[in-house]
Amino acid sequence: MPACLVQGASRGIGLQFCRHLLRGVPNSTVIATCRNPGGATELQTLQAEFPSTLHIVPLDVLDEGSIQRAASEVQQHHGGGVDLLINCAGILHPSGRGETSLRDVSSQGLSTTFSTNAVGPLLVAKYFSPLLQKGTGAFGQHGSNKRTHAAVMANLSAKVGSTTDNGLGGWYSYRMSKCALNMATKNLSIELGRGKNKVICVSLHPGTVDTDLSRPYHKNVPSDKLLSTERSVQCLMDFVNGLTMQHTGKFFTWEGKEMPF
Amino acid sequence: MPACLVQGASRGIGLQFCRHLLRGVPNSTVIATCRNPGGATELQTLQAEFPSTLHIVPLDVLDEGSIQRAASEVQQHHGGGVDLLINCAGILHPSGRGETSLRDVSSQGLSTTFSTNAVGPLLVAKYFSPLLQKGTGAFGQHGSNKRTHAAVMANLSAKVGSTTDNGLGGWYSYRMSKCALNMATKNLSIELGRGKNKVICVSLHPGTVDTDLSRPYHKNVPSDKLLSTERSVQCLMDFVNGLTMQHTGKFFTWEGKEMPF
Repeated sequence: MPACLVQGASRGIGLQFCRHLLRGVPNSTVIATCRNPGGATELQTLQAEFPSTLHIVPLDVLDEGSIQRAASEVQQHHGGGVDLLINCAGILHPSGRGETSLRDVSSQGLSTTFSTNAVGPLLVAKYFSPLLQKGTGAFGQHGSNKRTHAAVMANLSAKVGSTTDNGLGGWYSYRMSKCALNMATKNLSIELGRGKNKVICVSLHPGTVDTDLSRPYHKNVPSDKLLSTERSVQCLMDFVNGLTMQHTGKFFTWEGKEMPF
Repeated sequence: MPACLVQGASRGIGLQFCRHLLRGVPNSTVIATCRNPGGATELQTLQAEFPSTLHIVPLDVLDEGSIQRAASEVQQHHGGGVDLLINCAGILHPSGRGETSLRDVSSQGLSTTFSTNAVGPLLVAKYFSPLLQKGTGAFGQHGSNKRTHAAVMANLSAKVGSTTDNGLGGWYSYRMSKCALNMATKNLSIELGRGKNKVICVSLHPGTVDTDLSRPYHKNVPSDKLLSTERSVQCLMDFVNGLTMQHTGKFFTWEGKEMPF
C-alpha cells in the first residue's frame, strides 16, 4: 500500500498529482494537505470519489506549528511510513506578478515568496522526514537484490530558479526563492542520504503549466509549450518512477533533462 | 575623486574595506554604512583619522525605509555618483551557529538570515543603483578608448552558497541565503547591464576570514587557510580592480577563481 503525501493539493499541479496517484497507482493512499480544506472544493469532490484512500489534512506552509501538527496527525492516523512526498505549494509573488525590475522589488514581496516557496518545503521536510525514513521504497528503482532507498521527496522548483540558466533577469522573488529551494534539496539529499533508510531528494521543473500561477503569462507562451496539468504530472511521475540514488540532490525538468544550478 | 560605499562597515571585512580604500586609493571618499553608528567604535576611530573623506551613514538592512533614507542622505550630501558599492553585512544564523541538521532548522532562523543576507543587499541595490549609474568608472578596467561601465557592485557571498559545490550539507539558512544572493547578483547584472551606464555586478567569496562570523569554526580551519581581513580585502580589491564587463553576473573567490552556482 504505497502512501503518498502531496503538500499544496487544493489546485493546480498538486491537485493533479492527487488525481493521478489515486487513479493510477493501485492500492495507494494519498494524504493531501492544503491551507484551508473547507475551501478546497475540487479536493473534496475527489475525496467523494476516493473516500477511503484520500485523506485531507490542513497544513499552512507559512505556519511551522501547523506543519508540525499535520505531521503528528499523519503519524497517528496513518501509522506507517510515507513513500513519496511532493512539495507543491508555491507563489510567483504576493501580487500575482513577478517583478519586472528593481523598482518592483520589496522587502515584503521577497519575504513572503521565500517563506512560501523555500522555507515551507524545508519545514515540511523537517517534520515529515521521520515518516519518509519509514517508507517501503514503493517509488523509484532499486538494485536487483536490495532496497536502495526508503522514499522519494520531490520539491517542485522552476527552471527560472537556475542561476546558471538565467538569461533574462526579472522575477527577483520567485527566482531567488526557487534557487534557495534547490539548495535546500541538495542539503536534504546529503542529510537524508545517510544510513539504511535513505530518501531520494530531487528538485523538479514541471514545465510552463496551465495553472493559476502562470495564467498572467499564458498569452506569451506558444500553445504547444503550455502543458496541461495532466501532461506535466504524467511526465513527472514517469520520471519519479525511474529515480535511483544516482539522481538524488539534482534538479530535473519534466522531460527528465538535468538542469544546472 | 572615486566614491565608494561600504554597506556593513562597523567590523570585520566591511571595516577593513573602508581602511583599505581610505589608505590605499588616492582622493577616495568612503561612505560607510552600519546599523548603529553610535556603537561602531572602530569606525569612529577611523573617522578621526579621515575626518573629511569618511562619511558614516546609518543603514539597517532589515529596514527598507532606513535603506531609502540612507540613499537620500548620500544623494543630498555627497552629490555625485558612487563608483564602487560593496555589500558586506551578513550573518551565519541568528544563533551564531549554522544548522548542523534539519532538527536545528526553524522558520525564524531561515527568515532572519534570508532578510539580512539576500533581501538587504538587493534592497540596497534598488535604492543605490541610480547613484551607481552616475559613477565615473573609477574601478575595474575599461576598453582602450572608451568607458565601458559606470560602477562596480560587489556582493559578499560565500563558497558554501554554491549548490553545485555543496558536498557537505548543513548550514541550511546560510547556504540558502547566499545562494539566493548569487541569483540576485545575476539578475542585477542583467538589469544594470543595459544602457550607457552599466554596472558590473559580481558575487565574491572572501575566503574563510578571521572575523566574528566564522570565529566559532576557527578551530576546524588549518591556520594557513584562515585569512586575515587585510589579506582577504587586498586580494578582493586586486580582483575588483581588474574587473571588466566580461565578469558581470558571475561568482568569484578571493583568489579570482570562478565558482559555479
